[in-house]
Amino acid sequence: MTVTIVGVGLISGSFALAMKEHGFATKVIGVSRTKESEQKALALGLIDEAMSLEDAVKQSDFIYVAIPVDATIPMMEKIMNMITDKQIVVDAGSTKNALCKALANHPMRKRFVATHPMWGTEFSGPEAAVKENAFKGRACVICEKEKSDKAAEELVETIYKKLGMHIIYMDAANHDIHAAYVSHISHITSFALANTVLEKEKEEDAIFELAGGGFESTVRLARSNPAMWAPIFMQNRENVLDVLNEHIAQLRKFKSCLEKENYEYLAELMENANKIKKVLDREK
Amino acid sequence: MTVTIVGVGLISGSFALAMKEHGFATKVIGVSRTKESEQKALALGLIDEAMSLEDAVKQSDFIYVAIPVDATIPMMEKIMNMITDKQIVVDAGSTKNALCKALANHPMRKRFVATHPMWGTEFSGPEAAVKENAFKGRACVICEKEKSDKAAEELVETIYKKLGMHIIYMDAANHDIHAAYVSHISHITSFALANTVLEKEKEEDAIFELAGGGFESTVRLARSNPAMWAPIFMQNRENVLDVLNEHIAQLRKFKSCLEKENYEYLAELMENANKIKKVLDREK
Repeated sequence: MTVTIVGVGLISGSFALAMKEHGFATKVIGVSRTKESEQKALALGLIDEAMSLEDAVKQSDFIYVAIPVDATIPMMEKIMNMITDKQIVVDAGSTKNALCKALANHPMRKRFVATHPMWGTEFSGPEAAVKENAFKGRACVICEKEKSDKAAEELVETIYKKLGMHIIYMDAANHDIHAAYVSHISHITSFALANTVLEKEKEEDAIFELAGGGFESTVRLARSNPAMWAPIFMQNRENVLDVLNEHIAQLRKFKSCLEKENYEYLAELMENANKIKKVLDREK
Repeated sequence: MTVTIVGVGLISGSFALAMKEHGFATKVIGVSRTKESEQKALALGLIDEAMSLEDAVKQSDFIYVAIPVDATIPMMEKIMNMITDKQIVVDAGSTKNALCKALANHPMRKRFVATHPMWGTEFSGPEAAVKENAFKGRACVICEKEKSDKAAEELVETIYKKLGMHIIYMDAANHDIHAAYVSHISHITSFALANTVLEKEKEEDAIFELAGGGFESTVRLARSNPAMWAPIFMQNRENVLDVLNEHIAQLRKFKSCLEKENYEYLAELMENANKIKKVLDREK
């Protein structure tokens, strides 16, 4: 089938490569805001051709949208107004509630499958697309399964499974709550940790020399693209604030232990945190 | 030469393996608090023999201490009281100031080299010892170089360099400040993030299914051993509190942006955090 990716970046580019590799796509068309990204995506072989949204949608069986979540809603409305009931539209955004609400009453709602493949890296743009093992071993959330045509939803599921993902069904509101806990907060702590260290670095240069593996892994996500993440935090504002408040409260417990030299409770807090092993080990 | 490792865990075990591999050690003796660890270290080939501290020190040229930092000070005092001026004692602790102060006036001070190889993993115990590329590419801090005998200090430097580390000289007080920024705070944020998620997990099980790569890397250090980390936070209490206060202040900025829906400043905070790239890229 002919596939269009809207946005030519980390997720859509990796998805396009996988769709070709697994024989789902005979042709991939790219739609991008910028000529520069189009050219890169062509050069990298992520897409076979670049064209306008209108032309691309017209000739595509499957349209995959992976752009910043604030741009997703108007883009999806535009696409849904253009398609026939033979076409499938899928989005890959990190928030699902606002989008699902916006499309709830669209006459073509059943041709839309709302997904969130829970894979990514801290890099972005066409160059960030990954050829090997992208998506593999991670969860893919499908929201409001019942609102999509059965055949369309099943095809999307088949594709993600072929990419090595396991499918989790969730309503959109619940998805956003969980995403705040297992993804969005990690990004905020990483951004904030980077700023903490950079604040100090104004005075001292030794940090550059010393930073080791532990630092690298906790601060890795601070490389992430603000143009992608600001809209996510905006759309999931209430859930993110809930988790952020809880996280600050947890940090305050460590602070209070140190201030009061209560090392027994400090050890207890860490022993409790150790229980995260069961989450990490279940992931594998 | 004959090497004794005091503590048979991640750091000392990896160090022992490397000392053998690079031909520095002809024999490695292990000293441990528990029979169980001794047996594991023997079975894993980390050590050739296990014995009491007294016997081990007597026949060793080089004594390497890598135990929780609260146990390090009394242990070092004990060892320093036993050695002759032909022997070298090295510690690998994550805090340096309290130890260097405690040993400042010891008659054998010059036989002691204070080091902090800035490498590790979130695992501990003899099974955690790493055979390949442990220490490689990371910084090793040597404190109060001038207080050690030149030949002793140079041998230690030669060994760490052979392991692929680059040497940074620092006074002990400065080391502890920097360690708070590039290592200790990462551990606290990870522990606190784990507790944040586990707090929620009481209600919901979906987190297990959803947790992805970003979450895994920010929370990885929450597996770390409380028996090792509580004493580090204790000994470096003031510096850790400084950094923790700064980190909470940085998180509050994100919180305030979300509360006030100030997305311009939110993007600015993230753009600033992106500058951490230059630190991460310099590490490689």
